[in-house]
Amino acid sequence: MKAFVMKRIGEVGWIDKPVPECGPIDALVKPIALAPCTSDVHTIWEGAVGERTDLTLGHEGVGEVVEVGSLVKDFKPGDKVIIPAITPDWNSVEAQAGYGQHSGEMLGGWKFSNIKDGVFAEVIHVNDADGNLAFLPEGMDLGAACMLSDMVPTGFLAADLAKIEHGDSVCVIGIGPVGLMGVAGAALKGAGRLFAVGTRPNCVQVAQDFGATDIISYKNGPIDQQILEATKGKGVDKVLIAGGTVDTFAEAVTMLKPGGIVANVNYLGSGEFIKIPRVEWGVGMSHKTITCGLMMGGRYRVEKLASLITYGKLDAGKLVTHRLNGFDKLEDALMLMKNKPADLIKPVVIL
Amino acid sequence: MKAFVMKRIGEVGWIDKPVPECGPIDALVKPIALAPCTSDVHTIWEGAVGERTDLTLGHEGVGEVVEVGSLVKDFKPGDKVIIPAITPDWNSVEAQAGYGQHSGEMLGGWKFSNIKDGVFAEVIHVNDADGNLAFLPEGMDLGAACMLSDMVPTGFLAADLAKIEHGDSVCVIGIGPVGLMGVAGAALKGAGRLFAVGTRPNCVQVAQDFGATDIISYKNGPIDQQILEATKGKGVDKVLIAGGTVDTFAEAVTMLKPGGIVANVNYLGSGEFIKIPRVEWGVGMSHKTITCGLMMGGRYRVEKLASLITYGKLDAGKLVTHRLNGFDKLEDALMLMKNKPADLIKPVVIL
Amino acid sequence: MKAFVMKRIGEVGWIDKPVPECGPIDALVKPIALAPCTSDVHTIWEGAVGERTDLTLGHEGVGEVVEVGSLVKDFKPGDKVIIPAITPDWNSVEAQAGYGQHSGEMLGGWKFSNIKDGVFAEVIHVNDADGNLAFLPEGMDLGAACMLSDMVPTGFLAADLAKIEHGDSVCVIGIGPVGLMGVAGAALKGAGRLFAVGTRPNCVQVAQDFGATDIISYKNGPIDQQILEATKGKGVDKVLIAGGTVDTFAEAVTMLKPGGIVANVNYLGSGEFIKIPRVEWGVGMSHKTITCGLMMGGRYRVEKLASLITYGKLDAGKLVTHRLNGFDKLEDALMLMKNKPADLIKPVVIL
Amino acid sequence: MKAFVMKRIGEVGWIDKPVPECGPIDALVKPIALAPCTSDVHTIWEGAVGERTDLTLGHEGVGEVVEVGSLVKDFKPGDKVIIPAITPDWNSVEAQAGYGQHSGEMLGGWKFSNIKDGVFAEVIHVNDADGNLAFLPEGMDLGAACMLSDMVPTGFLAADLAKIEHGDSVCVIGIGPVGLMGVAGAALKGAGRLFAVGTRPNCVQVAQDFGATDIISYKNGPIDQQILEATKGKGVDKVLIAGGTVDTFAEAVTMLKPGGIVANVNYLGSGEFIKIPRVEWGVGMSHKTITCGLMMGGRYRVEKLASLITYGKLDAGKLVTHRLNGFDKLEDALMLMKNKPADLIKPVVIL
Repeated sequence: MKAFVMKRIGEVGWIDKPVPECGPIDALVKPIALAPCTSDVHTIWEGAVGERTDLTLGHEGVGEVVEVGSLVKDFKPGDKVIIPAITPDWNSVEAQAGYGQHSGEMLGGWKFSNIKDGVFAEVIHVNDADGNLAFLPEGMDLGAACMLSDMVPTGFLAADLAKIEHGDSVCVIGIGPVGLMGVAGAALKGAGRLFAVGTRPNCVQVAQDFGATDIISYKNGPIDQQILEATKGKGVDKVLIAGGTVDTFAEAVTMLKPGGIVANVNYLGSGEFIKIPRVEWGVGMSHKTITCGLMMGGRYRVEKLASLITYGKLDAGKLVTHRLNGFDKLEDALMLMKNKPADLIKPVVIL
Repeated sequence: MKAFVMKRIGEVGWIDKPVPECGPIDALVKPIALAPCTSDVHTIWEGAVGERTDLTLGHEGVGEVVEVGSLVKDFKPGDKVIIPAITPDWNSVEAQAGYGQHSGEMLGGWKFSNIKDGVFAEVIHVNDADGNLAFLPEGMDLGAACMLSDMVPTGFLAADLAKIEHGDSVCVIGIGPVGLMGVAGAALKGAGRLFAVGTRPNCVQVAQDFGATDIISYKNGPIDQQILEATKGKGVDKVLIAGGTVDTFAEAVTMLKPGGIVANVNYLGSGEFIKIPRVEWGVGMSHKTITCGLMMGGRYRVEKLASLITYGKLDAGKLVTHRLNGFDKLEDALMLMKNKPADLIKPVVIL
Repeated sequence: MKAFVMKRIGEVGWIDKPVPECGPIDALVKPIALAPCTSDVHTIWEGAVGERTDLTLGHEGVGEVVEVGSLVKDFKPGDKVIIPAITPDWNSVEAQAGYGQHSGEMLGGWKFSNIKDGVFAEVIHVNDADGNLAFLPEGMDLGAACMLSDMVPTGFLAADLAKIEHGDSVCVIGIGPVGLMGVAGAALKGAGRLFAVGTRPNCVQVAQDFGATDIISYKNGPIDQQILEATKGKGVDKVLIAGGTVDTFAEAVTMLKPGGIVANVNYLGSGEFIKIPRVEWGVGMSHKTITCGLMMGGRYRVEKLASLITYGKLDAGKLVTHRLNGFDKLEDALMLMKNKPADLIKPVVIL
Repeated sequence: MKAFVMKRIGEVGWIDKPVPECGPIDALVKPIALAPCTSDVHTIWEGAVGERTDLTLGHEGVGEVVEVGSLVKDFKPGDKVIIPAITPDWNSVEAQAGYGQHSGEMLGGWKFSNIKDGVFAEVIHVNDADGNLAFLPEGMDLGAACMLSDMVPTGFLAADLAKIEHGDSVCVIGIGPVGLMGVAGAALKGAGRLFAVGTRPNCVQVAQDFGATDIISYKNGPIDQQILEATKGKGVDKVLIAGGTVDTFAEAVTMLKPGGIVANVNYLGSGEFIKIPRVEWGVGMSHKTITCGLMMGGRYRVEKLASLITYGKLDAGKLVTHRLNGFDKLEDALMLMKNKPADLIKPVVIL
C-alpha cells in the first residue's frame, strides 16, 4: 500500500509499505479524510521527536473500518470513524490514574507518526479499537470531523486545564487552529471577557466568531502590559497558551491574578527552561498555578466533543480554510501547513 | 418611609417604617428597579419561612447608594449598585469554609425578606456593603441587572453544582426563570445535548434561545422514560432541578448515568422526604451524586456573572416579560408572580 | 478442577468445573489465600444479584499466575498477585470517563461471583490481566494482602468520596471490616475528631486503633442526636456510611453540617427508597451532598493502597481475626461470615 | 507600651509605642506566648518586604483578648486566642473567591510585621477579630499553639496544594519547621512512600516521627537522581518544596511523574526566574503542574488544624526545641532563628 512518510529528518515522500496486520483488539481503517498538523511540520523539519526512518506521517483523520480483531466488541467493518491523534493503552496504570496520554511513559499515548506509523496511508492500523476509535456522527461534515482528531481536543484541553468558571476573564495566547479551539473551549466554559492574542486577520475574525471579546496584538507592545492596562492592573483569571515560546510564560504569569492558572498546550520546541518570574510569582506564594498537558485521546473524549458539533454548540468546520481532493494531495496539504499562507487556518484532504 | 410588607402569613400591604440606621460597615441604598420572586410568594402565602410581622418583602433589586458606614472602602453615595439576594457575614467560619450562604446557620446568609427587612422600601439597609454590594456596570439594562440579584446566580449555581463538562448531556427540569438560567448556565459550561423539561410556550422558546436542544413535556409521559428513550437507555450525565417537588428526584436519579450528578436549586416546600430509588441508585454503589445549594451571594459572584452580560455572553433581559413603572406597582408585580399569567417569566418594576 | 459454588439462591457446595481458558489479554491464577465477603452472604442467602446456577463464589484473594495471554505485557507465570474484587473493561467509555466500575453498565465492573465465576476455585480466570492484576509486594502478610481485594479499597473509597480535609470532623457509621477501613481511610485523609458508630467490642477496639476518637452506640439513643450533642449542635463535616439500611441516611443528613458530604459504600439490600429528610436538607438548599460508590478495582488503585501497608501507614492485617488453612476450609470461612461470631472481623483461608 | 521592632533593614531594637486603638470590628490582645519566624529574619536582614521604619516584628503568637470592638460577636475580653500570621479582609472580592491571603493585592492578607505592626508588643491589634482570631483549645500546650500561627498552616498548605491522595509517593524538599509540617501534612493526607530531603540530625529524626519513610541527603548527589533511582525511574507523584532556591524546581520537575504536582510554600528571596526544564516538562505537554501559595489565615483554618492537635493526630509541640521565658527574651529567640544552632527547630517565648 502507499504511505506518505518522513524518510529522515527534513525529507518526506511516498513509499510502498505492507498492509499492517490487525491484532485481536485492533482495527484496520481506510481513510476518507485526512489533515496534516503543525506537529507533522515539527517532526519532519525540526526533528521534534528525533530521527525516524520511513515513518508514516499524520495523526488526524476520518475513515471507514475494514477489519477488526477478534476481541473488538463495539466496531465492525463498514463503520465510519474518527481517529484520535492520541491512542493510549487504556489498561495501563497511567490510564487508570487518569493520564492515558502518558501510558507507559511521558507522552506514551502519542503513537501515530511518533512511535508507530501514522494515518497518511491507504490502510491505517489503530491500536485498541474499542478504546481508540470514535463513531463518526451521521451527517457530520468531514472537515469538522477531522478537527476532532486533534485541534478540538487539544484546544479544549487548555480550557479544561485552566478550570474556567462562569465569568472568568481569560487570555488565549496564540490563535492558530489550536488557539482558536482554546477560545471556543473557553467561551463554552463560561468565560466572560475573553482576550485573544494574535494578528492574522482571518484568525482574528474566527476568534471573534468563537467568542473573543478583545483582540490583542503583540505589535502594540508587550502583551502582559496591554492586558494589565485593559484590566486596570488586576490581570486576568486564566491564561491559555497555544502559541509562542518558552519566554511566553513570563508574560502569562505577569498578566495573571493571584489564584489564577496558566494552562499550556503549545509544543515547546527549543530553549532549556521555561522561566517563571520570581517577583510576579509572588516570591513563591502567589497561588498562581502553571500547568500543561497533552490531549486525552480515546473514544470517550472524542465522542463527547463531537456532540458539541452535533448539537450546534461548536462550528469546528470554520477552522478548515482549504479543502483538497485526492490522496495524492496530502503533500500539498502538508506544505500549506509548513508555509502558512496568509489565508490558512487548516487544510483537509478529502479522499 | 414607605415599605411593602408581609403583615402576617397570607396578608401584604404598605406601611410606614423608620428609615434604617447605617452601621459602620453597612450601606443605605435607594432602589431604582425591583423585582418580586417566587420566594416572596412562598413566604407570604405558604409561610415558607414561618410567621413574620410587618416584614419588608423583596430581595431582588438595583439601586443607588445614599449612605455608607465609616469603614466602607469601596462604595460611596451616588454609586449605582446591584443588591444580591444573599448577603452573608463574610468573616464567619462558614464563609471562610466556602459557604457564606450558610453563615451562622444553615441558610443564614439569606437575610432580606427573611431575618431582616427586604428591598421593597424607599431606603434599603445592606449589611456589609463592601462584601455585599456589586457595582452596576455602566449601561446595563435595569431589567437584566435585576436578574443578577437572584435568578442568574441561582440558575447558574445549578450548572456549577452539576460540574458540567464539555459535551455533557444535561437535563434541566423546570423552565421558569431559574430553570431558564439553569439552561443558560449549562450551555455556558459546555453542555452538548441539553434537554429542558417544561410546557409553557414562551418558556420553551426562551429555553431554546438559551441553548436547549430538546424539549421534554411531562404531558407526553414520565420524563425519565422519555429521556432514557432519547438516549438509547444510557441516560444523561447531569440533571439540574429547578422545579417540581420532592418526588422529582426519583425521576432525576433514574435518568442519570452512573457517575452523574443531580443538582437541585428548587425550594422544596412540602413532603417529609426526598426519595432516592434504591435500585436505580445502584443499591448504594452507583456513583450517582445528589446535591443542592443556595446561591452564593456577595459582590464577587454577582460582578462575575454580570460580566457575562456585559461581554455579550448572556442575554438575561430575555427573562423580563413585564416591565411596570413606579414604586406603587410593586404589589401588581407581586400578584403577577403569584398568578403566573401565561406570558409571564419575570416582572420588573422600574422606579 | 474444584470450585466452591452457589448452586442456586440459598444453596452452596463443591462441584467440578473445567479449567477456564485464557484469552489473549487474560491470565489464569492459582489461589494461595482467599477470603469470603459479606457480599457472598448477600448473594447466596439474599439473592442480592438474582438467581445464579453453579456460580463460583468469592472475589477476594491472592494467588500465583500460571498462564498469561499473548498480549499480556506486565505479568508472567510465577508472579504473585493480588486479585481485585472489581475487574473493569478498561477501554470502555465508562472507564475512560473515570468510572471503570460501571463499565458497560451500572456496576458492570463487578464481574467475579456475579457475572463470571469467582475466585473460590483451583484456577481463577482474570479478565484483562495487565489492567486487573496487582503485584503482591514482597513479604506482605497474606491476610493483609487479601484485604486489598475489597475491604481496603471499599472502605477507603468512602473516605475519598467524602473529600475529607485536614481537621474535618467525621462520623463513620458501621464498623465491620469495611467501616473499619473507612475509619482508617478517614484518619489517613486528615480527619480530626472521628466518631465511629458501633457496638461490638473487638470492632470498637480496632476502630480506636485505626484512629477513631469517639465511639457512639445506637444503644444510647438516636445517633444523630448524640453527634449533635457532642458537637454543640453544629454536626460533623462528613459522614461515611458502611452499615445500616436505607433509613440510615436520614440520621446521616441530620448530623451533617451545611456544605458536608454523606458518602455511602454500604450495599443497600432492601427498601424502595433512600429517604432524605426535607427540612434537615435545608428545603433543598443546604449544600449537603449525598453520594455513593463501588470500589475502583484494577491494578493502579490496589497497588497504590498496597503501598500504605508496605510503608507502615496501614495495618490491614488487624482485620483478620480468623485464619484457616486449606482450600477445603472455604465453606467454614463463609459460614463464619454468615454467622458472625462475636470475635469475628474477617476470616482468611490460607492454601 | 514596649515593642520589639525593625528600626530599618539590618537593625532591630526595643522602642516605646502608643497602645493601638481598637476599631469596631477589631480586637486588642495581650500576648502570652510568641515565636519568631524565619520570615522575620528575611524581613530584617534581607529586606524581603522592603524598607520599614520601627515596624513591630513577629506574626506568631498566642494571647488573651483585652478589648473588642462594638461589632465583634464571637470574642470577648479574657478569651484565650491563637493569632494567625495571615489576617485577611474577609469581605474582599479576593476572599470571596477563595483567596483571602491575597485580599486587596497579591499577598495582601499578610499584614503583621509587613504592612502593620506585628505581635512582638505588649498589646497587639488584630484586624477583623471575628474573622481572624481562633480560640485556644483548653489545655493546649502553648508551644504547640504558637505553631498554629504559621508553621502548621504553611506546611499543611503544601500538602493541600499537592492534592495528595491515598498511597501517593511524595517528596518533601526541606525539613526545617515548615517542611516538617509538610511531612506531617502529607502523611495525614495519606502519602505512602514519603521521602524527606534534609541533613540536620534532629530534623531527620522528627521527619521520621512525622511519617517520612526515606531520608534523602543532597550530600549524596543530585536529589532528583536519588529519587529516580529509588523509584526505578518512575519518580514520585507529588513534590512539596519547603526549602531551597529558585533552582530547586528543576530537580522537583525532574523527579515528578506526568500528572504530578510540585507545590511550593518556600519564600524565594533571590533569582530572577524559577526555571522549569523544558524536556523534563514534556516539551509543554507533561501534565506536570507547578503551584505555590501563602497560608490561608483566619479563624476557620486555624481552628480546624488545631483540632488535629486536640484529637491527638498531630504533635506540633515536637517542633519546639527551645523554650525561653519572659518578654525580654524575644531578641534571644530571634537570634536563635537567625543563627540556627544545630539543635534548633523552633524557639518559643513564654510570657
